[in-house]
Amino acid sequence: MRWVRYEADGKTSYGILNGDEISEVSGNPFETYSETGTTRTLGSVKLLIPFEPKTFYAAGINYEEHVREAAKLLNREPDLPDKADIGYRANNALIAHNEPIVKPRDSGERFQYEGELVVVIGKQAKHLSEAEALSCVLGYTIGNDVSERDWQAADRTMWRAKNSDTFKPMGPWIETDVELDKLRTQVRVNGQVVSDFATNNMIFGVQHYISVMTRNITLFPGDMIWMGTDGASENMKPGDVCDIEITGIGTLSNPIVLEE
Amino acid sequence: MRWVRYEADGKTSYGILNGDEISEVSGNPFETYSETGTTRTLGSVKLLIPFEPKTFYAAGINYEEHVREAAKLLNREPDLPDKADIGYRANNALIAHNEPIVKPRDSGERFQYEGELVVVIGKQAKHLSEAEALSCVLGYTIGNDVSERDWQAADRTMWRAKNSDTFKPMGPWIETDVELDKLRTQVRVNGQVVSDFATNNMIFGVQHYISVMTRNITLFPGDMIWMGTDGASENMKPGDVCDIEITGIGTLSNPIVLEE
Repeated sequence: MRWVRYEADGKTSYGILNGDEISEVSGNPFETYSETGTTRTLGSVKLLIPFEPKTFYAAGINYEEHVREAAKLLNREPDLPDKADIGYRANNALIAHNEPIVKPRDSGERFQYEGELVVVIGKQAKHLSEAEALSCVLGYTIGNDVSERDWQAADRTMWRAKNSDTFKPMGPWIETDVELDKLRTQVRVNGQVVSDFATNNMIFGVQHYISVMTRNITLFPGDMIWMGTDGASENMKPGDVCDIEITGIGTLSNPIVLEE
Repeated sequence: MRWVRYEADGKTSYGILNGDEISEVSGNPFETYSETGTTRTLGSVKLLIPFEPKTFYAAGINYEEHVREAAKLLNREPDLPDKADIGYRANNALIAHNEPIVKPRDSGERFQYEGELVVVIGKQAKHLSEAEALSCVLGYTIGNDVSERDWQAADRTMWRAKNSDTFKPMGPWIETDVELDKLRTQVRVNGQVVSDFATNNMIFGVQHYISVMTRNITLFPGDMIWMGTDGASENMKPGDVCDIEITGIGTLSNPIVLEE
């Protein structure tokens, strides 16, 4: 099942997407809902971020090749994580499918995409085993963990390198029927493939992260976990369009514009 | 003015506190509100965290003596920050005044308080100068940035060291009439003073942080910024009670219990 969130006739709604048709619901996928009978075509609405997250978790370093490439960029030794220590990003930075990523005027050339699988939590959870972990997951969407590498190297935290306004495109929707091992992530800039990897080839998988996290923290409906990216990233510049496709989920597409 | 948030007769409300009397409002301090005419005594309600934050920002390292003491604990050289780089904490960890801080069974002895001023954002803000910065502030409350130092030293992020469930007591209310330079923070464990410092003696003050942050990020009503703590902290153990008083705001009090 695909969940979309959208604006139409000045109103924000959730809907269930079948092909190009949206069936509007009252309520939401995290609590209760019922179909209202109203339908719309996908092309006739403005897609919003598929939900307003409560806590925005991010695995960060979670693919081997990315660790080596990131270390090179930051002039550090590669340091493979030995534990699934989760990090954080911030909601101010979220934008929807098709909305512009705004490149700040004082940012550097190393302004880069990171294509990521996003795990959407649907049920409250604590102390889940790895075998139980996916029981709290509603579905999956796609994230672009846009990063400014000069700031990432210079600052004590990643507040502006990764959390400046518009640096976190997410969408286009939530897909609930996913087989993690079958997913493939492909990033394209202006239609040209710049990254392509097996999405589930993580250092620590979704089940392991959820199991470790819920030893100490309660996950709530509407929390989300961004699972990291693989490989090196290339630079994006104003005028480019960045697409991230995860097979079976969809394609998240965003143009890059220069800050006015 | 003091804003409380509380549960009474199975209902959650905001109210305005005068002495020991709460005047219930409909609405909330971030949007619009009106007094309903219902009044209650402070002792007759269950206080909740004074609001459900949107994004939970934390300055972390923001007082000189704390930098030196933290460096000692982590066996590192003291490293005074040269920029106001903001960090993050997580909502799952928040608890209200009088609720128990649960010490996990696998945590170590260095389980410590950090008394902090909490800045509550009331208006959407971007690109504020230092002179304009306080115009987006609704008021101030008190936070206890409970920290497990073994985990802080061992992990790549502070997810469990500072964000395990119950590690972030906050309250008891929001005070809107505050002169930052007059504030003093005092921490007491079982009634004994263990920390006492001028709250505004920060490396980077509230105005500077807001001004720097809003160059890159939009602050929203309901966001908050925890401003860090001064000095060294001592250990807390189950059975202790930790009080944090900031003059003119109030006292946040929480017992420590062992995880069941």
